[in-house]
Amino acid sequence: MKGLAELGEFGLIDQIRARFPQPVAPELGIGDDAALLSPSAGSQVVVSTDLLAEGVHFDLGFGPARLLGRKSLAVNLSDIASMGAVPRWFFLSLAIPAGFPLETIEGLLDGLAEQAAEYGCILAGGDTCGSKSGLVISVTIMGEQRPELILKRSGAVLDDEVWVSGSLGDSALGLQLLMEGKRLGQSDDYLMQRQLDPTPRCDLGRKLAEAGLVNAMIDISDGLLADLGHIGEQSGCGAEIQLGQLLLSPAFQAYAANQHAFPWQLAVSGGEDYELCFTAPVCNHGAIQKISKTTGIPLTVIGKITSSRQVQAILPDGTNFQPSASGYTHF
Amino acid sequence: MKGLAELGEFGLIDQIRARFPQPVAPELGIGDDAALLSPSAGSQVVVSTDLLAEGVHFDLGFGPARLLGRKSLAVNLSDIASMGAVPRWFFLSLAIPAGFPLETIEGLLDGLAEQAAEYGCILAGGDTCGSKSGLVISVTIMGEQRPELILKRSGAVLDDEVWVSGSLGDSALGLQLLMEGKRLGQSDDYLMQRQLDPTPRCDLGRKLAEAGLVNAMIDISDGLLADLGHIGEQSGCGAEIQLGQLLLSPAFQAYAANQHAFPWQLAVSGGEDYELCFTAPVCNHGAIQKISKTTGIPLTVIGKITSSRQVQAILPDGTNFQPSASGYTHF
Repeated sequence: MKGLAELGEFGLIDQIRARFPQPVAPELGIGDDAALLSPSAGSQVVVSTDLLAEGVHFDLGFGPARLLGRKSLAVNLSDIASMGAVPRWFFLSLAIPAGFPLETIEGLLDGLAEQAAEYGCILAGGDTCGSKSGLVISVTIMGEQRPELILKRSGAVLDDEVWVSGSLGDSALGLQLLMEGKRLGQSDDYLMQRQLDPTPRCDLGRKLAEAGLVNAMIDISDGLLADLGHIGEQSGCGAEIQLGQLLLSPAFQAYAANQHAFPWQLAVSGGEDYELCFTAPVCNHGAIQKISKTTGIPLTVIGKITSSRQVQAILPDGTNFQPSASGYTHF
Repeated sequence: MKGLAELGEFGLIDQIRARFPQPVAPELGIGDDAALLSPSAGSQVVVSTDLLAEGVHFDLGFGPARLLGRKSLAVNLSDIASMGAVPRWFFLSLAIPAGFPLETIEGLLDGLAEQAAEYGCILAGGDTCGSKSGLVISVTIMGEQRPELILKRSGAVLDDEVWVSGSLGDSALGLQLLMEGKRLGQSDDYLMQRQLDPTPRCDLGRKLAEAGLVNAMIDISDGLLADLGHIGEQSGCGAEIQLGQLLLSPAFQAYAANQHAFPWQLAVSGGEDYELCFTAPVCNHGAIQKISKTTGIPLTVIGKITSSRQVQAILPDGTNFQPSASGYTHF
């Protein structure tokens, strides 16, 4: 099998080019000093970027490289979803260690190409280079939306209902299982899949924005409490949530049933759920439930926006939940 | 002095925020899931991205971190310049090893902020995370220009004159001196400055594009022969250049005078010049010389576009130059 060194930088770029459809004229993708993009008239451009470093964000031993490729784009798609925007283009930079297996890179590119095709997001450019140690993946994504429809963290209003899509905690629990040595193909695949191959809520985010039902939105990457806290900070308010209202998957509940203490920490601070958390006026409740039905994605009210400037989480027994840590720290 | 671990991820983001002016409404920068940008009506968006990895693209021992910050943005600005576009926004992602000195990060940010202010480029977002080993800097830059003015690699026409801005080889020679152990503050500062603090030719690139004088343009990052080769590939043509016509700086010439063989290799394949190479009809020669005068940047004709599908470099004695390698390989 041909190695990366033999393939070379331009060979690698050809491998990338072969997997991704190119922008159509008058746009210009891979092969010049810069990409040329034509956003729709009247749209704002919505841009997000995420850096994933080996040994920090991912462990290549946890699952196939294809899933890592899918996730690298999914976490960026999720940021576009949380603004209610439509993904359009992305840029991929890879720093690859010397002697890195070519088939891992090919798997990574396959996963990225799958995910890009699923969400209609075009690879418009990037950069490839060597790395002194681990693999580093940098993705910058660009979407678009009419400015008046874009959902920010700053729009929450007192007495808004706080909604969450899907179930929480699966991804964090899946990561815990992987760190304990479990792998895909055994039991608990659902939980590990949620960690290794999260689903960005692009269709849902866009529908909520275009229906004009929502005041503020964020995607849950750092954990519900931390991310709802970001909405509070930007909106100048707080929130009170009832943990008993959280939707938990059957797999999560089955795991919880075997624990001494219910693993609330995983559900509300574990992070990497990539579900959407949003706030909306009570009068929009029915219309939002209809969107839940048409998209097939569960949407649950878990609390409301308060004037308290903090996020208070109430356990099913009525006492306050005290998180042991909220969100991941990098340094 | 406060360390990075004590400062934390959000403290670091505050440090970044403090150094860079934020986009003005209705645009939205750091602090939401994505940045919102409003390109000018009728413009295409021009996007480029570069990943710089410690030990691959830079050595922190070679010069102050401030210059590394300036260069991280300069190499991206140069890509925007080579399209004839105007830089507008950039995104900065940093993967930082545990225990990395905070003052190095501060120097890096200072340099980025200086360069951003000089070129009117707004920091609109980014990402920060840990790194298993070296520092990784990922910059994505966005500019804009009216589509009919944008200069691509693909526009070169038979018999076009081939032009180069500034002098070539200084940066590659500066790198050689740094690798030999020389440092700034001794002799040869000019050469090492050209390596550590290159000047992107944004004003020149924009003026050439807006004057409508040029058919194809590229910035010289991989070395003149490789980059002129890219113009040839994309335009379906070749070029013949006279090495005796190349502008070489007094410092480069002084170094060359002490060598057994003239270091053509450094001048045409060393790379990282970040000068512009462009092709233009002979009838625009005088108008281009005028732009050279108004910008104060030397512009030199070094050859012409041919139908040969290769780049031929002729030495001053009339023989063909044989490069020992063209451009840097990463893997």
